[in-house]
Amino acid sequence: MTVATTDDYIEQHVGSALQQLARLVRQPSVSSQNEGIEAAARLVAGMLEESGFDAQIFPTEGYPVVYAEAGDGDKTLLCYNHYDVQPAEPFELWNSPPFEMVERNGKLYGRGVSDDKGEIASRLAALEAVRAVHGALPCKVKFVIEGGEEISSPHIPEFVSEHRELLGADACIWESGGVDYEGRPGLTLGMRGILYVQYTAHTMSRDAHSGSAHLLPNAAWRLVRMLNRLKDEDDRILIPGFYDHARPPTADQERLLEQLDLDEREMRRSYGIEHFNRNLTGMAAKEAVFSPTANIAGLSAGYEGEGPKTVIPAGALAKMDFRLVPDQDPEDILQKLRAYLDDLGFGDIEVASLGGERPAVTPPSDPVVQIAAETARAVYGKEPRIAPLVGGSGPMYPFRAYLDVPIVNCGVGYPESFVHAPNENIRRSDFILGTRHMARFVQRWAGV
Amino acid sequence: MTVATTDDYIEQHVGSALQQLARLVRQPSVSSQNEGIEAAARLVAGMLEESGFDAQIFPTEGYPVVYAEAGDGDKTLLCYNHYDVQPAEPFELWNSPPFEMVERNGKLYGRGVSDDKGEIASRLAALEAVRAVHGALPCKVKFVIEGGEEISSPHIPEFVSEHRELLGADACIWESGGVDYEGRPGLTLGMRGILYVQYTAHTMSRDAHSGSAHLLPNAAWRLVRMLNRLKDEDDRILIPGFYDHARPPTADQERLLEQLDLDEREMRRSYGIEHFNRNLTGMAAKEAVFSPTANIAGLSAGYEGEGPKTVIPAGALAKMDFRLVPDQDPEDILQKLRAYLDDLGFGDIEVASLGGERPAVTPPSDPVVQIAAETARAVYGKEPRIAPLVGGSGPMYPFRAYLDVPIVNCGVGYPESFVHAPNENIRRSDFILGTRHMARFVQRWAGV
Repeated sequence: MTVATTDDYIEQHVGSALQQLARLVRQPSVSSQNEGIEAAARLVAGMLEESGFDAQIFPTEGYPVVYAEAGDGDKTLLCYNHYDVQPAEPFELWNSPPFEMVERNGKLYGRGVSDDKGEIASRLAALEAVRAVHGALPCKVKFVIEGGEEISSPHIPEFVSEHRELLGADACIWESGGVDYEGRPGLTLGMRGILYVQYTAHTMSRDAHSGSAHLLPNAAWRLVRMLNRLKDEDDRILIPGFYDHARPPTADQERLLEQLDLDEREMRRSYGIEHFNRNLTGMAAKEAVFSPTANIAGLSAGYEGEGPKTVIPAGALAKMDFRLVPDQDPEDILQKLRAYLDDLGFGDIEVASLGGERPAVTPPSDPVVQIAAETARAVYGKEPRIAPLVGGSGPMYPFRAYLDVPIVNCGVGYPESFVHAPNENIRRSDFILGTRHMARFVQRWAGV
Repeated sequence: MTVATTDDYIEQHVGSALQQLARLVRQPSVSSQNEGIEAAARLVAGMLEESGFDAQIFPTEGYPVVYAEAGDGDKTLLCYNHYDVQPAEPFELWNSPPFEMVERNGKLYGRGVSDDKGEIASRLAALEAVRAVHGALPCKVKFVIEGGEEISSPHIPEFVSEHRELLGADACIWESGGVDYEGRPGLTLGMRGILYVQYTAHTMSRDAHSGSAHLLPNAAWRLVRMLNRLKDEDDRILIPGFYDHARPPTADQERLLEQLDLDEREMRRSYGIEHFNRNLTGMAAKEAVFSPTANIAGLSAGYEGEGPKTVIPAGALAKMDFRLVPDQDPEDILQKLRAYLDDLGFGDIEVASLGGERPAVTPPSDPVVQIAAETARAVYGKEPRIAPLVGGSGPMYPFRAYLDVPIVNCGVGYPESFVHAPNENIRRSDFILGTRHMARFVQRWAGV
């Protein structure tokens, strides 16, 4: 049977595509707990082989990377995905078992249905549709499907750097994406970088009774005083040289920000707040994604239980993530942070790096962005929301820097996909739309 | 059988005195867990009755107070003790069961052997010795033995205020005391007050992904910024009016501080530190007990586990105890703290009081202090260490304020009694010395 369009083919074969997704969901693959990772890599490689790809499993110093390729043509498309998922805990908040895909009311539930197994299944379905309509893939297609995205992809920069030739491509489709509350598809052209640090203050060999607080040094106070030197009242980070490499948005990026609808009211309602930080609103709120942040992600010291306990903490801990903007470099920031604390006399406070990723952006003017936007407009019937940079982080940098490939995305999620949370889900309709978008992009980009 | 001196009697009858202590230890009485409190009150009342006292159990809104009296004379001596103890947890660190008194190498182990059941048993033994030597008590003796000392004696101020006539006395012997590393007996003439508060910052209805840290308010940052406004770099507390009622030491108190040996080196060694706060040393270190403190006893926010998690905490918590000096008042300080935070724009940060006690001192010139010192010198053969004020807190204020009674102490502990910790213990020899001191004090003070 031949079909006229990939849209039709995808609609007719969505059942078997979702069966493939169910296979992926059924295999737990929790990177932070090292659960099911090797088996998941083999499953993914096997499914790629079944779908006509030559697949290989590359060991890394962390979790294996599945690499696969198929098709031929003047151009090469690279797809970045990950087979690992977030932990399913707390299990008791799930309405159905997390590692079993269940359909209810047009929605598919299960850990990873959105992030990112849904997109693996969607891409395979889209490429199958393209092949069915055209008899063959109109370009070379490569997959990099890693197993450590949820733990900050620690070995991806090295992997990409070492396999520049193998991975070489003309465009890259990134993981994640989907629609907003109004059904508008979203395109992400960049991600902030990150430096995650843990501060530890140790002032004594053991906790003491607070009756001696006039004499004995308190680690919690030491930490609080240090933290307070990191940012001023206007959220400006005080580390000397911190902003040296931070670029403001380009004119193209500014234009995209102007067109972007942040839906401030909905966001504030969702978090029960009246104002954003520093009363940011409108264009200033949108531009703030180009400002790096220093976020206290955790604090711990002394007695944290019910009621009073009169103790001087001997130790205190803070966790902090810095979100970095182009062209900041987490290693550079870490050095500047350490030097600043030493200069302030906080040499005793330990700063441990728990991970870093560099920021990366694709220029809005890149033709690949235009094609992704046009095909999204055609499939969804709505104007796509194109974000020049999003607040989160991911391993985009090595792909941009070592492969020099423009990156866009298409996805299957929606705002209530509960990514990283219990009852992760996607809508069947979004799976179909995301798959159609992927298929249309491949054809339009490859010129068939 | 009659004996010539209380010293001899005490020496001869120490075995039965320690059996009485063993009875007290065997009855758990953990106020913070409401374990065994009522039974302990009955046991203590029963033991007082056996010892010739008229005992009563007074209910309070918290735990019952055991009151007892015996003897007659021109003068009345009041003894303050408590039958409750700290939790025995962690049980696994005890070398013998905490609620069973065990003697090993001249030491008696068990929860409460020092704090404060040892002193109850010691006082009963001392008074029995006085009665044996003199045929009767040479003065009226009253006991107030409460059940909530380890949870800040919440109902003692009200109890003392309501029973001023019943409790009226000419001198009061306080709980706790004993010897230092050099075997010198310690006398405590005053305790700091305390205000214990818990701060809660809430900025959002739920935690958020830190990719939005440029927009969404972080409760941990809010808390850190607020805390930083409470103290300057020199530990000076910045709450307006905080020091209004703080009195410097009197000339008499200064003299005692001058004579006091702080043993700075041992204290720094014990906590593994090189310097005290602000490099305090010598007289300045000793005088610092007359400076109030603001101690962060606990901090908690966001993610406190292993590794990184990129979260904006919606809530953050800090616990703080202010140690107060004469004549600061915790209620006044709480109001000033609240007003200060409101003025600074931190009206959103909740401040909950978890308890307060007022400071109290007995003047060093009081004749009762001289008698306690003289009798200590005679019993221990060493110069007593007399502290005009100690860093910790206790319910001394109502006794000083409502009964106008001078307060001194005698006790059975030593620096390694591990009070509040596993393997709490006293030395048999200190029990005898403390009991002899009590008996000598009663005789000398009553003039027999």
